[in-house]
Amino acid sequence: MKHIAILGSTGSIGTQALEVIRDHPELFKVSVLSAGNNAGLLIEQALEFHPAQVVIGDEQKYGEVKKALAGTEIQVFAGEEALIESVKLTVIDVVLTAVVGFCGLRPTIAAIEAGKHIALANKETLVVAGELINALAKKNKVSILPVDSEHSAIFQCLQGESANKVEKIYLTASGGPFRGKKIDFLASVTKKEALKHPNWTMGAKITIDSATLMNKGLEVIEAKWLFDLEPSQIDVIIHPQSVIHSIAQFQDGSMKAQMGLPDMKLPIQYALGYPDRILNTFPRFDFIKYAQLTFEQPDLSTFRSLGFAFEAMERGGNVPCIMNAANEVVVRAFLNDELGFLEMSEVIERCMSEVSYIRDPNLTDFMETDEETRKIAMQLVTNY
Amino acid sequence: MKHIAILGSTGSIGTQALEVIRDHPELFKVSVLSAGNNAGLLIEQALEFHPAQVVIGDEQKYGEVKKALAGTEIQVFAGEEALIESVKLTVIDVVLTAVVGFCGLRPTIAAIEAGKHIALANKETLVVAGELINALAKKNKVSILPVDSEHSAIFQCLQGESANKVEKIYLTASGGPFRGKKIDFLASVTKKEALKHPNWTMGAKITIDSATLMNKGLEVIEAKWLFDLEPSQIDVIIHPQSVIHSIAQFQDGSMKAQMGLPDMKLPIQYALGYPDRILNTFPRFDFIKYAQLTFEQPDLSTFRSLGFAFEAMERGGNVPCIMNAANEVVVRAFLNDELGFLEMSEVIERCMSEVSYIRDPNLTDFMETDEETRKIAMQLVTNY
Repeated sequence: MKHIAILGSTGSIGTQALEVIRDHPELFKVSVLSAGNNAGLLIEQALEFHPAQVVIGDEQKYGEVKKALAGTEIQVFAGEEALIESVKLTVIDVVLTAVVGFCGLRPTIAAIEAGKHIALANKETLVVAGELINALAKKNKVSILPVDSEHSAIFQCLQGESANKVEKIYLTASGGPFRGKKIDFLASVTKKEALKHPNWTMGAKITIDSATLMNKGLEVIEAKWLFDLEPSQIDVIIHPQSVIHSIAQFQDGSMKAQMGLPDMKLPIQYALGYPDRILNTFPRFDFIKYAQLTFEQPDLSTFRSLGFAFEAMERGGNVPCIMNAANEVVVRAFLNDELGFLEMSEVIERCMSEVSYIRDPNLTDFMETDEETRKIAMQLVTNY
Repeated sequence: MKHIAILGSTGSIGTQALEVIRDHPELFKVSVLSAGNNAGLLIEQALEFHPAQVVIGDEQKYGEVKKALAGTEIQVFAGEEALIESVKLTVIDVVLTAVVGFCGLRPTIAAIEAGKHIALANKETLVVAGELINALAKKNKVSILPVDSEHSAIFQCLQGESANKVEKIYLTASGGPFRGKKIDFLASVTKKEALKHPNWTMGAKITIDSATLMNKGLEVIEAKWLFDLEPSQIDVIIHPQSVIHSIAQFQDGSMKAQMGLPDMKLPIQYALGYPDRILNTFPRFDFIKYAQLTFEQPDLSTFRSLGFAFEAMERGGNVPCIMNAANEVVVRAFLNDELGFLEMSEVIERCMSEVSYIRDPNLTDFMETDEETRKIAMQLVTNY
């Protein structure tokens, strides 16, 4: 029996993780559930899964949750510091980090320091502080198990190959809703259009990131740290059907791909069940229904975010942190109709050139960089 | 340093294996080379690789080989029994069985009994006597390492997954030169047309087997024994580009595929080097050059051999042996212009219904079945 803490249990990954856990009560027990502000769903989940603790990020909703769970044995906490404490609970084996953005960093660090394995859905943690996280994980002998479908694919392909050098990986990208479109078209696209992902049902932030290709950029940096790769070993290939989830190429030239229907429940289940593959009733892939798989080069001159990510990875230090913070601000602004689609990359680019560079940042530096970048980015947004 | 014996060194697999070995003198040493009747090339290979022994199958060519290698320390033998003795040489670690057809069976058994690992390119060995071979391999603690690209693909995909159940495998097939053609067209195709394989450069026998889909049928049965599968767990999918070499689907629905350029040197190198992947200079795959990968159902009513193979696998006993012997006869007859393309499956079908069924055949039974079937098949051929 694995005891699981879920950070972000009311989001897309969180709710799908609970579906996996619901199907396998003999394998998994929920120890902690936490949400940002969706108190209603958090209460519902708590009443079904009976965790030891629930944490609601929004402290104003503490009373609502506390009241709803009165008479149960579930402990209720609120606020960011409570979240960081909750992952340290002795019984927890695996912490699923399914919160979005920089805010996942400190709870993930706390979990690693408490010796918990990490099922990592919060890619920003590795994007911002990959080196620091890897060193901590090594020191505390915990595994970082990727949940992103692309990284899960590579991770699966590397099973049994630890003695064999990886020459290159190919991260596949659907290309998002605007694949093949040019600058002229993108200048006027709406939030509604950007939120229509062709293959994957995901939260709003990652769906916008998919439309700009920033999601793939973040994934490139995440892959660097997960698989210990040089930037030149990571390639991105547009594959609109999202069937081949990514590819690892070994030093003999042989490539292994992990494939299947675009369904996040599989990589979630794989990370929670690792190293065991759990029998399930998910729909199976049918080659005849996907009779044609296609590949294209990404259009870096139109979708500039992917280039920013490679630049940030090459420059290192706090640059990925700057890029990420700026991106979080512009995506929120775009979703609030404060910024146009193309203006998002303009703000990110400005932040990457204006925020002070730190070569070897520590956790405090990351927090300060994040804060400084957000201020500058918000100022830039208001000028549009 | 691995010491390698190559049975069938002058054929397509044999010569490509020697290219791999030539590139890695620090890893491999050739101990035995053997050929059926290409004395000239065998002599050339022997003078380059200095094996301890060479064996020429055709006893009439013994004098030619012996004379050419006079003054060297290479021992020269001739005939089938000498071949069977040669694989027992103490120094040999791996025997690459690259001969074509039923004639590979006895040397392979001798090699397994002598405790040699088998790099299996002679698929007929497992098709005819899979159960017997598996039991012998287990008893003698030797590995059967597949060389066929499809089986190498599955074998690679199963690395690190020994604890996880395989739900299904998909063997890919190019479809051969006559993919999409119907009976009317096939009635009049020539040897020359049948020998033009779209993707793979191979020997004549396997190229004709690819044109009839019998090669895929033999591979289906081979896969059953290599990976311990039920017939219902094996599927064939037509994939004309031959880029995805085959796919393993696990019990969680996740699929792993091994991919790359269609080049037999990679699976040969993998089998010889296993478990190490050896750095090489083979050309690398380029997704943009293969921008479209397609899949189709095989046309079983036109290409009947694939159905015969499933039938033979279901009936078991000596039926795969019958099917294989009949196929060897008809392919030779087709290559000798004694039989038309469609007549090949007619003869195989007749043999499968006419030769006596043996439920639990031993080696003698297989040899008698092979002989009996060949007689009947040849008689049928002369009647056309």
